[in-house]
Amino acid sequence: MTATASTATGTATRASTKIVLGQNQYGKAEVRVVKITRDTDRHQIQDLNVSSQLHGDFTEAHRNGDNALVVPTDTQKNTVYGFARDGFTSVEAFLLRMGRHFTTEFEWITGGRWEAEQYFWDRIQDHDHAFSRNKSEVRTAVLEVKDGVSTLVAGLEGLTVLKSTGSEFHGFPVDRYTTLKETSDRILATDVTARWRYSDAAVAQGIDFEAAYADVRERLLRAFANTHSLALQQTMFAMGEEVLAAHPEIEEIKMSLPNKHHFLVDLSPFGQDNPNEVFFAADRPYGLIEATIQREDTQPHQIWENIPGFC
Amino acid sequence: MTATASTATGTATRASTKIVLGQNQYGKAEVRVVKITRDTDRHQIQDLNVSSQLHGDFTEAHRNGDNALVVPTDTQKNTVYGFARDGFTSVEAFLLRMGRHFTTEFEWITGGRWEAEQYFWDRIQDHDHAFSRNKSEVRTAVLEVKDGVSTLVAGLEGLTVLKSTGSEFHGFPVDRYTTLKETSDRILATDVTARWRYSDAAVAQGIDFEAAYADVRERLLRAFANTHSLALQQTMFAMGEEVLAAHPEIEEIKMSLPNKHHFLVDLSPFGQDNPNEVFFAADRPYGLIEATIQREDTQPHQIWENIPGFC
Amino acid sequence: MTATASTATGTATRASTKIVLGQNQYGKAEVRVVKITRDTDRHQIQDLNVSSQLHGDFTEAHRNGDNALVVPTDTQKNTVYGFARDGFTSVEAFLLRMGRHFTTEFEWITGGRWEAEQYFWDRIQDHDHAFSRNKSEVRTAVLEVKDGVSTLVAGLEGLTVLKSTGSEFHGFPVDRYTTLKETSDRILATDVTARWRYSDAAVAQGIDFEAAYADVRERLLRAFANTHSLALQQTMFAMGEEVLAAHPEIEEIKMSLPNKHHFLVDLSPFGQDNPNEVFFAADRPYGLIEATIQREDTQPHQIWENIPGFC
Amino acid sequence: MTATASTATGTATRASTKIVLGQNQYGKAEVRVVKITRDTDRHQIQDLNVSSQLHGDFTEAHRNGDNALVVPTDTQKNTVYGFARDGFTSVEAFLLRMGRHFTTEFEWITGGRWEAEQYFWDRIQDHDHAFSRNKSEVRTAVLEVKDGVSTLVAGLEGLTVLKSTGSEFHGFPVDRYTTLKETSDRILATDVTARWRYSDAAVAQGIDFEAAYADVRERLLRAFANTHSLALQQTMFAMGEEVLAAHPEIEEIKMSLPNKHHFLVDLSPFGQDNPNEVFFAADRPYGLIEATIQREDTQPHQIWENIPGFC
Repeated sequence: MTATASTATGTATRASTKIVLGQNQYGKAEVRVVKITRDTDRHQIQDLNVSSQLHGDFTEAHRNGDNALVVPTDTQKNTVYGFARDGFTSVEAFLLRMGRHFTTEFEWITGGRWEAEQYFWDRIQDHDHAFSRNKSEVRTAVLEVKDGVSTLVAGLEGLTVLKSTGSEFHGFPVDRYTTLKETSDRILATDVTARWRYSDAAVAQGIDFEAAYADVRERLLRAFANTHSLALQQTMFAMGEEVLAAHPEIEEIKMSLPNKHHFLVDLSPFGQDNPNEVFFAADRPYGLIEATIQREDTQPHQIWENIPGFC
Repeated sequence: MTATASTATGTATRASTKIVLGQNQYGKAEVRVVKITRDTDRHQIQDLNVSSQLHGDFTEAHRNGDNALVVPTDTQKNTVYGFARDGFTSVEAFLLRMGRHFTTEFEWITGGRWEAEQYFWDRIQDHDHAFSRNKSEVRTAVLEVKDGVSTLVAGLEGLTVLKSTGSEFHGFPVDRYTTLKETSDRILATDVTARWRYSDAAVAQGIDFEAAYADVRERLLRAFANTHSLALQQTMFAMGEEVLAAHPEIEEIKMSLPNKHHFLVDLSPFGQDNPNEVFFAADRPYGLIEATIQREDTQPHQIWENIPGFC
Repeated sequence: MTATASTATGTATRASTKIVLGQNQYGKAEVRVVKITRDTDRHQIQDLNVSSQLHGDFTEAHRNGDNALVVPTDTQKNTVYGFARDGFTSVEAFLLRMGRHFTTEFEWITGGRWEAEQYFWDRIQDHDHAFSRNKSEVRTAVLEVKDGVSTLVAGLEGLTVLKSTGSEFHGFPVDRYTTLKETSDRILATDVTARWRYSDAAVAQGIDFEAAYADVRERLLRAFANTHSLALQQTMFAMGEEVLAAHPEIEEIKMSLPNKHHFLVDLSPFGQDNPNEVFFAADRPYGLIEATIQREDTQPHQIWENIPGFC
Repeated sequence: MTATASTATGTATRASTKIVLGQNQYGKAEVRVVKITRDTDRHQIQDLNVSSQLHGDFTEAHRNGDNALVVPTDTQKNTVYGFARDGFTSVEAFLLRMGRHFTTEFEWITGGRWEAEQYFWDRIQDHDHAFSRNKSEVRTAVLEVKDGVSTLVAGLEGLTVLKSTGSEFHGFPVDRYTTLKETSDRILATDVTARWRYSDAAVAQGIDFEAAYADVRERLLRAFANTHSLALQQTMFAMGEEVLAAHPEIEEIKMSLPNKHHFLVDLSPFGQDNPNEVFFAADRPYGLIEATIQREDTQPHQIWENIPGFC
């Protein structure tokens, strides 16, 4: 039925090799916590979706169902709520406390991953306790603790942007399957997913995560808007360069940018011209452009292995 | 504003270090192709969602918008359609042909990643050309070509399973935040996402991918059903072990299993008992249990770095 | 700012007319209840998503926040769980009990709407208590109670079907905006949403809802498969006619069928033919065909006003 | 198998009654058109998702597959693009032109329904041709043409709002299934879906649809924020009243408001208090509150029958 019939030495060896537990983790995902700070009449709101994953030697649970080392995922959830009560200055600070807690409270927890999404709220007409959700983007954060080191990746996703001109695409190679025409004026649109890793040293020293987030977001938008684009790759690199140049505490930034195609509609059958005015916004397929922009001496970091959607 | 104010030597160095392009890839995502084989009146249907990503040195496109090496994503899409016309025996075979094509047709393409989802269709009442979609699961495949080596990861996702008894959870550690009660009878439910990597040697020799898929699927279901579970971890390991023991051509299998909580409803306020009969099926949060089950000498493989949702 | 500047008599009257509460309802939506019947070792599973909406005179709650008549939505949820404990033979029977309860327990509740989705589970390899979800379709049911009469609409949604031949489309009118070509062989694909209303008399007498559902589903599939289609409208009518002819207890059936376009890919630029073998499955836009198939003397029924997606 | 076995006179009659085509419509759904107005360097963007449905006597298509009267859905799509080229002042104006066109161009088209969603874009840092999507809400519009009369319903959906205090719920009736506790301080959160119908007279006279939309949106937010709430019903009524009082051209407004529960977490097991600071944001179930707020003499209008999600 399978390749085993024509088995070579390699696969025969496979069959006799012991089957073992490799990399593993477990925890509670998507704990939805809303924290209202109401020490004055002017309330503050923090809205998170937190996931917690613990690392350690859980072989006994996997092989024999022995849970003596398995801190329940329910306990991890409760800890999110307990810590929220104490307040926090940023989503990154919240995760750092989670990481310290689990790796010190339980001696067999050697590390883990803690992630969160943050949702933004604006005040309604400057009201003290009424808010409307600002859905322009979702803020993200990932903490990995390994061998006593805390690594932080901040980010955002779902930030949809579009340029109605100032984008070209030409000069590409042509083969048997190439039918695309060159263009010197097209719509360029994408949903920005960006994640940037702070240097471990900066995290240890302390970072104003709120200010850093706001400034990175502004620079990504500015570079997107102001780059005359010959390729989405070029725009993406400019966005990353703008961020790294201004933020020495950031080691590298990764982006995943779908090229959301807007096809010019052929109106000539109806006797109309179409000077780049009417477009069909397609769903699928879409281009997908991904890259890391980094310092020349930045080393690969294992935290990225668990973050989906990036090369 | 950021940590730069209190800059240490490390971050100062950062500011003066050259900003460069790191890992990157680009291509076309989610090309929806439906292939009808109609050489007899009894039609066959193959339904794929294919993504293609190319690797190579694309520095010039990123830095200067020079597209001389940028095989258009539109060309990649066209190639999917052209190859579908020629027919294919399995989704894995289709991806292997894609990988060979791009790394030989264009000398500067050093590798890439090709992925697909496959959707299943059943015949309606054994009809020759009428089908209904079988949505029980989606089949997945990922090919990575690097340094001339083709690595294949097959898989499935969205296979939702449930045991109404035969699942316990107790013996876990207790701390300040623990409120969970032990149980000797609970519902165990999950959405199976599994991905298994074939050994490069077996891929080179040739595998009956269709038969392998069907058998792995059946074994995953059987092990889930027949394992008396003391922890979802234990069930997961048993599922992986069952697959590896029977398939020497598989190096390792990774699973990501949400613990979809079904909470027993307290009916006592209404004067009713509830002997494990009525449950509230919760959405969030959920447990999340992930592991690799592998051979003792299996080495980490870089293909996993780009596959989302796995530790 | 608005039309009021050029106000005619009509709108002036509007401004001075009293503002009142019109049609209204309230309740709890999407109560996820899983019922395990375990009176023998061979368990049964029923998996529902229930919504409850009450009708009556709730003017005081709307105008003054007086909740004396507002049976809490939380109570409606609890009632779902309490009733599930007692067991039920079909989703329709469950809703009928809900309707009777609320309109008799609370004298001011004059009626209401109760809806449910049912999810299907298959046994894994004939196991006694292990199941996998059959996602081929979702079963639906809507009950409306009004003026002491119970009206039931059963249905299904998400049943995706496709014919790879046996479908034509030609003979349509042509105007300035028409560019579509006629075809005598195309793929016909749709997601069947069907809802059928049982006669109030049949509901009062009693119906074997499980058997009726299974038979309607089978007939819909059979008619779809066996109709040589000159238009999706024709296929839809044949499906409804097949159901009504066999089920005198059904007054009318409504269907909403997206025409899921599968476009033949032009492979000629690559030197290939394409004899209806390779298709691009488009997402949007899609055709949308909707109709009621009914008895000649069927009267319009108000229950449809609240069921989305139907003309 | 079904009720037919015990058939009464009623169902016997059913079996012999002719099966006919009832209400029906067809068209193209979700035509995604993006219109750039570039008569100056400062571009404007209009982003719509348009659906078109035609009414008339299509019996021949349903019974015999005769398409002589079936204006192709593809033609309806093309018309959207052709009309976009000419420009439009509002989404409502666009739909009105669609309605006039089809009911005059084809004598057998007696009416129809045209719907659209509009997506909003903000300028990036006041740039001339770079935009980011404002996802706070989606604007909606529905036009029905019947018997020569055009009826327009404008609306919005997905506007998520929350009050962190100023919301109570008590004084409700209690029965066997009631376990809810009274509260004088809770979070009130909802996703606003609102749809308002302009009077046919106002539509015939002409309305500044852009200004009306902006003002209705602002009033909905203001009333939500400023109403001290004893019930979500009360808040909803206040929102509708605020709109109707200021807009004589609006006949009625319907809202569908999920009560998005935020449950206060019990932190006492961890030795913490929780003075309305830490909440669990639940997904399902949720309350669902729906009502029409209207003029005293407003008559029911058939356009609502086809708009989902409203009582």
